[in-house]
Amino acid sequence: MTHNPVDVVGIGNAIVDVLARIDDDFLETHNISKGAMHLVDEDQARTLYDAMGPGIEISGGSAANTIAGIASFGGNGAYIGKVRDDQLGDVFGHDIRAVGVDFSVAPATSGPATARSMILVSPDGERTMNTFLGACVGLGPDDVEPSRIQSAKVTYLEGYLWDPAEAKKAFLKAAKLAHDADRIVSLTLSDAFCVDRYRDEFKGLLREDVDVLFANEAEICSLYEVDSFDAALQAARGDCKLAVLTRSEKGCVVAAADEVHVVDAEPIDKLVDATGAGDLFAAGFLHGFTNGKPLAHCGRLGAIAAAEIISHIGARPELSLKDLAERAGL
Amino acid sequence: MTHNPVDVVGIGNAIVDVLARIDDDFLETHNISKGAMHLVDEDQARTLYDAMGPGIEISGGSAANTIAGIASFGGNGAYIGKVRDDQLGDVFGHDIRAVGVDFSVAPATSGPATARSMILVSPDGERTMNTFLGACVGLGPDDVEPSRIQSAKVTYLEGYLWDPAEAKKAFLKAAKLAHDADRIVSLTLSDAFCVDRYRDEFKGLLREDVDVLFANEAEICSLYEVDSFDAALQAARGDCKLAVLTRSEKGCVVAAADEVHVVDAEPIDKLVDATGAGDLFAAGFLHGFTNGKPLAHCGRLGAIAAAEIISHIGARPELSLKDLAERAGL
Repeated sequence: MTHNPVDVVGIGNAIVDVLARIDDDFLETHNISKGAMHLVDEDQARTLYDAMGPGIEISGGSAANTIAGIASFGGNGAYIGKVRDDQLGDVFGHDIRAVGVDFSVAPATSGPATARSMILVSPDGERTMNTFLGACVGLGPDDVEPSRIQSAKVTYLEGYLWDPAEAKKAFLKAAKLAHDADRIVSLTLSDAFCVDRYRDEFKGLLREDVDVLFANEAEICSLYEVDSFDAALQAARGDCKLAVLTRSEKGCVVAAADEVHVVDAEPIDKLVDATGAGDLFAAGFLHGFTNGKPLAHCGRLGAIAAAEIISHIGARPELSLKDLAERAGL
Repeated sequence: MTHNPVDVVGIGNAIVDVLARIDDDFLETHNISKGAMHLVDEDQARTLYDAMGPGIEISGGSAANTIAGIASFGGNGAYIGKVRDDQLGDVFGHDIRAVGVDFSVAPATSGPATARSMILVSPDGERTMNTFLGACVGLGPDDVEPSRIQSAKVTYLEGYLWDPAEAKKAFLKAAKLAHDADRIVSLTLSDAFCVDRYRDEFKGLLREDVDVLFANEAEICSLYEVDSFDAALQAARGDCKLAVLTRSEKGCVVAAADEVHVVDAEPIDKLVDATGAGDLFAAGFLHGFTNGKPLAHCGRLGAIAAAEIISHIGARPELSLKDLAERAGL
């Protein structure tokens, strides 16, 4: 099978988000730490769902959000992830294909249901995720078709793939295929607790397999077990060719071997829901990057996409990111 | 089985909404008339879903939205409707129970999937619905438990129940049970095309079975086949004890045998999505009505609830209607 060339192919956990607003004390009552991604099994998922208020379902998944964002910028994207042949799997597949993304991995016909993440949004807009991985555990190296990777400028991988055991093999296969074809490999660290679970493996990946790293402040500090952003920045510069470090309202720092850029965040009216901020920052950055833009320009595209996504509920763009970029003169 | 007393028990088609924004030309391309509810079969549903953009899933269903609204006002509600034991059925059941509504109808264990309505929201906020009835065709008189009806002050029925054949029998059984127990029966006409499908039957219902009628301008004009609102108002006054006629931004007219009230709409910043406007108007009105409030007061509660629902995507309240009513001094 051959594939059309794309800017970015993303590999990740294919998830439908169930978003609900919560009061400040809900997380405390249920002993859930704010802002993180927690893995839950089927029983825990049921217990939490029964306790939470009414939700809305929107397709999510970190790398899938990024690829949908690239499509919204007018870029070409492909996605590799695993759903089941159930209603939520149908929703996931529809939503990502509807924005023009190539998603051709066959859904599982048995085993656990399509993954969902109960995303609890606090009054301050911070989100806390509780993810049942479901069918994502079925993603493996066989789902990574060589020509799909070879025909993409960038292969973008999420750290969350380290959680389902077989997905890690898919990740490593994709990274090797990309490098063998002289393509770029990019990784997002995903979550500070995820980094904590796989610190040594991630450090090895950065040195050997990753060209472009995305991490937020908590993640990069966790990786190097340091307290200050600057200490993490210095460590990252030594470890990877290009580190893109996001700092929420403080903007981002883009660090390459011979240049460092500090780019401001895009102003917003109100932080409605932080879900997808990092995913969409990566979308903007990679859209610029795959179109040969200067690094500071890439950072601004990331900031614009992140600002759009946190101004509404859900992690898929509501406005055309292409239009927003044009309006900003980018 | 006995049931706790409630203010209102609603009977309706249990539906999960799939909301997507569309351009102005989408409806034309697909030959769909704007603003109406269209029934689609499974194949048509698939064709339309494949053609539409990414959606978000939110529990819906006309009477279910009304009962959820009553719960948001702090009232007690129960709901009778049929889902399947599938993922969307689970979502529907969770969301309505999560706001405190008694929903105890067993899901179907075979047959078609939980109903969904593809709701296309135009740039002006108007919504056009394309409903696959699915498991709703399984709702029948056996799902109407006598004590559930007898213990409710008002039994609220949607005209849409006339579409699935067995649901009509459930409707008529509930109306008889309610009247035999000296309870109130209320009907919403639901949709002008629905009225057109069942005009004579609805006219008979109004004369014999319905105490409180809800209809919008298009529906009541369709029922009496007249062109002017006033002509419809005069006809309705002769036919039913209490007619509550809504006119979008023109407010509503509440017409009883010996009093008529004209109540203004509540101002809004922007019409985001008209989905659920009528359902939530009915929620506010019935909440006042079941608490013995004057008719004009009931109309204002309806206007407040309708204004909240059309200011955001989806047909379930995002803000506490109880708080909004208190802030308005009601």
